[in-house]
Amino acid sequence: MSQRPDSAPTRRKLIVVSNRGPVSYARGADGARTASRGGGGLVTALRPLVSHHDVTWIASAISEEDRRVAARAVDETGRDGATYRLRLVAHEEHAYRLFYDVVANPMLWFVHHGLWNLPYTPDLDRAFDLAWADGYAEVNAGFAAAVIAELEAAPDAAVFFHDYHLYLAPRLVREQCPEATLMHFVHVPWPQPDYWGVCPERVRRAIHDGLIANDLIGFQTDRWRRNFVYSAREFLGEDVTPKTVVAPISVDPSEFEEMARSEPVLAAEREIVLRRPEKLIVRVDRTDPSKNIVRGFRAFELFLEGHPELAGRIGMLALLNPSRQEVPEYAEYLEVIEHEARRVNERFREGDWTPIELQVGDDFPKSVAAYKQFDVLLVNAIFDGMNLVAKEAPLVNARNGAVVLSENAGAHEELADWAVSVNPFDVAGQADALDQALQIPEVERRRRLEAIREHVREHDIGAWIDLQLAALDRVAAPVRR
Amino acid sequence: MSQRPDSAPTRRKLIVVSNRGPVSYARGADGARTASRGGGGLVTALRPLVSHHDVTWIASAISEEDRRVAARAVDETGRDGATYRLRLVAHEEHAYRLFYDVVANPMLWFVHHGLWNLPYTPDLDRAFDLAWADGYAEVNAGFAAAVIAELEAAPDAAVFFHDYHLYLAPRLVREQCPEATLMHFVHVPWPQPDYWGVCPERVRRAIHDGLIANDLIGFQTDRWRRNFVYSAREFLGEDVTPKTVVAPISVDPSEFEEMARSEPVLAAEREIVLRRPEKLIVRVDRTDPSKNIVRGFRAFELFLEGHPELAGRIGMLALLNPSRQEVPEYAEYLEVIEHEARRVNERFREGDWTPIELQVGDDFPKSVAAYKQFDVLLVNAIFDGMNLVAKEAPLVNARNGAVVLSENAGAHEELADWAVSVNPFDVAGQADALDQALQIPEVERRRRLEAIREHVREHDIGAWIDLQLAALDRVAAPVRR
Repeated sequence: MSQRPDSAPTRRKLIVVSNRGPVSYARGADGARTASRGGGGLVTALRPLVSHHDVTWIASAISEEDRRVAARAVDETGRDGATYRLRLVAHEEHAYRLFYDVVANPMLWFVHHGLWNLPYTPDLDRAFDLAWADGYAEVNAGFAAAVIAELEAAPDAAVFFHDYHLYLAPRLVREQCPEATLMHFVHVPWPQPDYWGVCPERVRRAIHDGLIANDLIGFQTDRWRRNFVYSAREFLGEDVTPKTVVAPISVDPSEFEEMARSEPVLAAEREIVLRRPEKLIVRVDRTDPSKNIVRGFRAFELFLEGHPELAGRIGMLALLNPSRQEVPEYAEYLEVIEHEARRVNERFREGDWTPIELQVGDDFPKSVAAYKQFDVLLVNAIFDGMNLVAKEAPLVNARNGAVVLSENAGAHEELADWAVSVNPFDVAGQADALDQALQIPEVERRRRLEAIREHVREHDIGAWIDLQLAALDRVAAPVRR
Repeated sequence: MSQRPDSAPTRRKLIVVSNRGPVSYARGADGARTASRGGGGLVTALRPLVSHHDVTWIASAISEEDRRVAARAVDETGRDGATYRLRLVAHEEHAYRLFYDVVANPMLWFVHHGLWNLPYTPDLDRAFDLAWADGYAEVNAGFAAAVIAELEAAPDAAVFFHDYHLYLAPRLVREQCPEATLMHFVHVPWPQPDYWGVCPERVRRAIHDGLIANDLIGFQTDRWRRNFVYSAREFLGEDVTPKTVVAPISVDPSEFEEMARSEPVLAAEREIVLRRPEKLIVRVDRTDPSKNIVRGFRAFELFLEGHPELAGRIGMLALLNPSRQEVPEYAEYLEVIEHEARRVNERFREGDWTPIELQVGDDFPKSVAAYKQFDVLLVNAIFDGMNLVAKEAPLVNARNGAVVLSENAGAHEELADWAVSVNPFDVAGQADALDQALQIPEVERRRRLEAIREHVREHDIGAWIDLQLAALDRVAAPVRR
């Protein structure tokens, strides 16, 4: 994280609440407990919190060993040696499955990202009603109980909830602790009210009512923030005036710059350089239907149709992290991705040139190596809360690459001036955008890339946290202190 | 149409513009030209216009004979003997196919009703760009030219555009005839701006810009009207202040009351009575994915699960009019409808009782007979501009039947107080609503049905027209007269 000595934040007591925790425990062959870093961008983003603040982190116990740990809070150590307390909540396992596999994913994730096929899905039957009551509400009650217990020990701590897993917890905490300071950050896009209509009235009401129990609700962009205010008024009444803040999540630029020079990344980069064509289009995504990978391949297909002279000289490298394969929609999506890549390759392949190189796996050093090597970065998400790839990749890119960016990615609100904007549904438009991106003169590409870097360095993950805590002080202080 | 002598509208010159016309021509075996009534609810709704006003109707030439007629306007006679002029526009055939089969249906219809499966569809390729320019824009230009020609002869006529086929025409007319009086009625739901994002920027802008060239834009409900104002400001700028009116479309009650006593309806009714179980749930719809027929069957399945005591004593009669079978999504939807009905029937069938009686065909007398015979009318549309079934069926029902009504049907804004509301995605909720509807005491059912009838008689199709013309006078008069 960049040092900003002029604005060093005051160290404060925070209770961070997120479904996934920063570490997960296992028991080694020798019977000793081992801790491994939890995955997910959310947790990565939140880690710097523990360096600057007195943090108690509440998260779900996931592994067997997590459940053993869950009896009491434990002391843990962050990446830079800072310590924090970790309190894992051992939810009843069946309740957790309903919470996670039925309500949070896919139901809420699909609502947030507009992914339902409304003539057929969702099909909300009795199982959903049960999953809502015995899963989502139950797990949220478990989180709320843990927060309330921590607040008893430290009533002046600020509680910092995260994301779509925890919409009901704030109201439950507020009922028990009317004086508590509560904030919530929503990492995902906020849909407009008609799309919330996919949820039955009691569900959409409970979600909005739970959120407004916070003193402050943070969003990635003003667009998602405005959508929230709009839907909250629609479902809770015109007199609802939630306190909100726009705080675009970001990364730790120094971490990426360091990583770019690390041996695993350099090794992966050498391999890419050895095989890459003259021009390389890169995309790095989870295999999530919201990421719009299929249309990305079709756009590249249209591009190749229009540029026979580039056969053999341009390629798309798609590094895709397999995601939620137990959800049928995700398994099907990965199948279609593989099918479309094959189809395009069979159509255009010549000699030893393969137009689309599709690599499905979890290899972060390779992703960073690809970030360094892109001539065009393609981010064409259907909807995306932020999309950190659009911030990470330009930081380390070594070829003055251009960024093609979906108008529905949160990052578009910050980076549009320096990117080629695309409508995620307009495949022909995306093909044209790839063309346009490749035509930008080098000096202009360099200028844009530098502008993105400067913006991300200025608005890094530390700034994201500071911005929210400052906003929290403005809204919570006058009321309760 | 009900007589309202106190508010008899002034006869005025109107140029009505809709894609489908009130009649279509053919040439009989004897070589003589014959005219047959055009189909579609829109045209039915507009027919009373010709009885009260001096109407020139502009519509697309559909048949070969229509194209022959298209050379000049012809005099036609309405149902009650009133005469009007009909001017058919012979569009270039390829342009018309692109306009109709690519842009209007499915693209715009699916946008208006939220029917896209966004991870995969729409897939807007070069073909869509061409269809937009050479089809939709071209056909709209053809309509605009016909309107401009008519306005030359009658500059004081008010032009009354209809629906999603004609979004670009008003701007084209306005450019040539800045003094013209233009109004547009949107029969379909208006989506919120994020869903309009499915259209590329130039397309969504052109649609909104075309519409605001009208002096007045009419919507079925305040909900669709507010969505339009919101999206117009989003795409055209905050200073846009379109003049709008809410005018819920309706029916001619006397026509339905008459029809209910007609021999074809009585014959169809006798057949239903002969076969009906004790309790009859009725739905009457086109086989359009927006109508939510599949979830309706699943809801009935859940209902039967919970009510084994009603086996053999209750049934669902689904009268479905096959629709747009040349569009793959529609053909697939009809297949799923048939599959689901079969599945539910196979699960619950006992003796000679079939739980779901599915009849696919176009038989309006049978529909009216079913209107008379329902104990519960199910209208669970995903999105629906109005849904006239919810107004027609109660008018003639003879069993004090109850209405289960989707919160996303336009009719819900008028009829919610007297219906059992359902969320269209909540199958369990719909099963509960069927139960609840059947439990309403007879006296209360009668009261509600009477209230709906009174409302529809008061707010009939004549009132719909008068309301718009009065609003037009308020907004257009101060500016231009």
